[in-house]
Amino acid sequence: MLSQVHEVCSQRTDGEVATYIPQLAYAPPEAFGIGLATLDGHVYETGDSRLGFSIQSVSKPFVYALALADHGLEGVLQRIGVEPTGDPFNSITVDEETARPFNPMVNAGAIVAASLVKGTGVEEKFERIRNALSAFAGRELTLDERVYNSENETGDRNRAIAYFMRTMGALEGDVDEVLEVYFKQCSLLVTARDLAVMSATLSNGGRNPVTGEVAIEPEHVSRVLAVMSTCGMYDYAGEWMYRVGLPAKSGVSGGIAVALSQRLGIGLYSPRLDRRGNSVRGIAACEELSQRLGLHVLRADASTGPPALRRRTGADIRSKRVRSAAQLDTLTESGSRIVVFELLSDQTFLTAETLMRKVLSDNGCQWAVIDLHRVTQTDTAAARLLTDLVRQRGSEGKVTAVIASPELTLRELMESEGAVGFDDLDEALEWAENELLTEGEHPSESTASVPLAEQELLAGMTEEALGAIAPLLVETTFKPREIVFDEGEEADAIYFISSGEAAVVLSGDDGRRWTRLATVAAGSAFGDLAALDGGTRSSRVVADTEMVTQSLMLTDLAALRVSRPDVVGQLYQAMARTLAERLRSANREISALRD
Amino acid sequence: MLSQVHEVCSQRTDGEVATYIPQLAYAPPEAFGIGLATLDGHVYETGDSRLGFSIQSVSKPFVYALALADHGLEGVLQRIGVEPTGDPFNSITVDEETARPFNPMVNAGAIVAASLVKGTGVEEKFERIRNALSAFAGRELTLDERVYNSENETGDRNRAIAYFMRTMGALEGDVDEVLEVYFKQCSLLVTARDLAVMSATLSNGGRNPVTGEVAIEPEHVSRVLAVMSTCGMYDYAGEWMYRVGLPAKSGVSGGIAVALSQRLGIGLYSPRLDRRGNSVRGIAACEELSQRLGLHVLRADASTGPPALRRRTGADIRSKRVRSAAQLDTLTESGSRIVVFELLSDQTFLTAETLMRKVLSDNGCQWAVIDLHRVTQTDTAAARLLTDLVRQRGSEGKVTAVIASPELTLRELMESEGAVGFDDLDEALEWAENELLTEGEHPSESTASVPLAEQELLAGMTEEALGAIAPLLVETTFKPREIVFDEGEEADAIYFISSGEAAVVLSGDDGRRWTRLATVAAGSAFGDLAALDGGTRSSRVVADTEMVTQSLMLTDLAALRVSRPDVVGQLYQAMARTLAERLRSANREISALRD
Repeated sequence: MLSQVHEVCSQRTDGEVATYIPQLAYAPPEAFGIGLATLDGHVYETGDSRLGFSIQSVSKPFVYALALADHGLEGVLQRIGVEPTGDPFNSITVDEETARPFNPMVNAGAIVAASLVKGTGVEEKFERIRNALSAFAGRELTLDERVYNSENETGDRNRAIAYFMRTMGALEGDVDEVLEVYFKQCSLLVTARDLAVMSATLSNGGRNPVTGEVAIEPEHVSRVLAVMSTCGMYDYAGEWMYRVGLPAKSGVSGGIAVALSQRLGIGLYSPRLDRRGNSVRGIAACEELSQRLGLHVLRADASTGPPALRRRTGADIRSKRVRSAAQLDTLTESGSRIVVFELLSDQTFLTAETLMRKVLSDNGCQWAVIDLHRVTQTDTAAARLLTDLVRQRGSEGKVTAVIASPELTLRELMESEGAVGFDDLDEALEWAENELLTEGEHPSESTASVPLAEQELLAGMTEEALGAIAPLLVETTFKPREIVFDEGEEADAIYFISSGEAAVVLSGDDGRRWTRLATVAAGSAFGDLAALDGGTRSSRVVADTEMVTQSLMLTDLAALRVSRPDVVGQLYQAMARTLAERLRSANREISALRD
Repeated sequence: MLSQVHEVCSQRTDGEVATYIPQLAYAPPEAFGIGLATLDGHVYETGDSRLGFSIQSVSKPFVYALALADHGLEGVLQRIGVEPTGDPFNSITVDEETARPFNPMVNAGAIVAASLVKGTGVEEKFERIRNALSAFAGRELTLDERVYNSENETGDRNRAIAYFMRTMGALEGDVDEVLEVYFKQCSLLVTARDLAVMSATLSNGGRNPVTGEVAIEPEHVSRVLAVMSTCGMYDYAGEWMYRVGLPAKSGVSGGIAVALSQRLGIGLYSPRLDRRGNSVRGIAACEELSQRLGLHVLRADASTGPPALRRRTGADIRSKRVRSAAQLDTLTESGSRIVVFELLSDQTFLTAETLMRKVLSDNGCQWAVIDLHRVTQTDTAAARLLTDLVRQRGSEGKVTAVIASPELTLRELMESEGAVGFDDLDEALEWAENELLTEGEHPSESTASVPLAEQELLAGMTEEALGAIAPLLVETTFKPREIVFDEGEEADAIYFISSGEAAVVLSGDDGRRWTRLATVAAGSAFGDLAALDGGTRSSRVVADTEMVTQSLMLTDLAALRVSRPDVVGQLYQAMARTLAERLRSANREISALRD
């Protein structure tokens, strides 16, 4: 697509190469390059995208950014305005009311911006500018000495501007020194690719998407983009916003930098200029790209739809904790009182507002689980709304859970308002299920031992059959963290838990991290799959608490199969029934998750 | 939060109520209302948000929208420019080069816009304007006769502007008539709430989010927002973009309309004005809201992160088609060659670009399934990229599947490039699995009958045990679409499929739509859960093709249990093993889906 745009716009042969700085006249008039950088650091290029040219006025927004970093917003606003002006970029005027140049995109304002860069002497100031622009570009930029000499020799108009500003009190310091810095700044060599990456760095909140380096603090970025969008294209600002709608800055050497906030950066180079001083092919390509790619900042033809928010209830999705049949019945019946709201995108005011409204109007929701595990950043407005939400629900006696990385400060803020924080969905679901299952009860100390007849896996077996199994069972007590069996071991028994609980875990790829597959507690069995296939253990089981088990050795089961095939038949029927129940629940969850 | 902003900004008591139209001087100086409308039609309000006032200049963007609808972009551009001007809003000037008023937000441009509204005579033109603005507001707006009379009596400056424009050739028609329409337009009564909804209608691409009515076609919206953002706040445009960064229009009665494209609309009213003619409290509240809610159009401090895109493979997620153990092994081993890319948000150029890059660089991906089921709209740039993707993969001999509503034209476009279209994930997965399983083979006509020993549910049983079951089986042939059993029926048999296939379906809440739970084919069983519990059927099974089954009656099974408990034990063990295998696969899918 970029190549197509390049081809279409190459047909434009009108316009003239700038000559007011003699060295610029040597630019190849047919040169035309485009770069487009995405915020994950991919750069598309076409044409002469690696051909060097002096940056000229395209340096202005980036040096303005440096001035903002050095002096802060108010410090810079006192010295340079932000209003667009109908006057030419090189006019010798300041705002007489405030004794400030109108904005940092005209030469007067740019000269003041350069003078604000901290440093002692020309070399230090220029090095700071060169380093700053290099950070934006992601490579070390160098000076074009010939252009610099040419600028210096023919820079009388800029000298006039500078001296005029000094008489008006708008500029301080040594005029020659300031202009030397300014001319050098304008003579830095860049390519269309560089301008794409520099713009993408602005679009990316100041962090270079290719190198990861922070070139400017995020708080200054929207200010820089604002002056680009109102003053960046000489006296073409209104029509530019109307037709193209992108913050941009052009320069007399034929470069254009376009920064679409939070989206991408574009760099263009073609030296023939229109009568306003903007690159003819550059402008044409921007119009094409804006239209073809739908990039207009104010575009309204394609709504992004409501913020991506998913709602599921505890009736559909379950923790990995193995529950008894009675508990499963309760969860199926009342699980809809547990509601999980999952945010599929980063949190801004708008997503938070929708979320808050949905949660508060969800009348059946007693336990709200706000799942932010995909969220990497929030803004303060979103944080405020979500802490409000927790507080408001708290005042209605309802508890809110939040799932988020412990590093997300929003989690901490919500916890300080009474939310319960969790690292993952499973933990949160287990908590909410426990709350639901023990509602109104004081859960007894779970030291009571579950008898064989109440074991879930054996439900439906006759008393006589259970009586035949009981004498075969071996009781064992495990300490917390004690491993019952490990991955790869020969399977030799089925374990029924009388009291306590254990985790079924799987080793990660690196052999160090363990993933919890399930929590099994008193009344549940584990190791049962071995009874079906024999073979080796596919996971590790480790006691979470002190745990007492009754185990049935597979050798004893084989003997029983001969002496009492009816009992073993009942056992397998009971197992199949339990597995079928779990499969049904798993399939319900899959349906809910796919929705 | 809105109330807090209202409270903070109420402390501003500077500024003066406008008096140049005498009737405006009667406005209560302390009045202050704010409305905020979201794009799903929720309106937040605080203060005097329902107090009526004459709309004045806030009408300009909406009438400009109507002019665009009546004459198209180029027709309007010929008559009204789009460049901001440093001159006051009521200056008597036009752009001498083009004989056009500079932009539609100054009085001169707004008068031309009103003259462009189609209709015969004052009444018809004004009624069209009133109806258009009412559509934006979502209620019928009425005229404030006293303000209109006052405007009419004191409108000499506007008469001067109109006559001046007529001598310059910028305005056609009867000046008195045009001005009568214009004065009436300015005298329509609105509230802060109305302005919020009107702005939200612009932000929503022209569709009123409360009523659902289309007030303006989407192609004109970004043009209207562009002139608001560059020319909407009198000569405060640069600083407005710098500090607030929102397209807005203010008026001398103290109203401000703020439209944040694709996000929300804000309406404000407070009659005391600053020296530029903007509402003091209105501006202050906009600054507060922009900052607190992070609304700046060019904000760059909180990235929305990469487009929401989920990648899963056929090794983790499976179609609902019941597969044999050998097939399951193949899918576990090679399923990663099937890759499902799910888009979690609407398609724009940027999401499509990321998607395209990810798919093309996914070397192991033979069958790419592009899941667009959440996507409701795409722009043309996205459509172009995705059709390119299908074509490019096609040239490498790789097939692409697309999941999308049949109404999405993008699906049709992709199909015309060779993509295979599906309505849901399950269909697409089944297709891809079939492709993978039959790769390199010519799948035999599936008329071959699957013998009992190869039935998945009976795998592992001894020949002797199978021999004991075989005589009990009853062979039945079903025609396509014939129902084998229905929901709620008494369960009386297990069915083993010898040839053909069937669907397990569930009736929807409305009793009419059926959801496919699974597809079962030769070698698989159904109705097996009944053998565990008895009870009634939980789903309907209907033959998809001609199908032959061998069924085992539960009464025969009960008899066998007495005579050959060992055979029944083997049967249940085999069933439990199959169920355990399916459960493991389901749990893998749940893990993948939760990621």
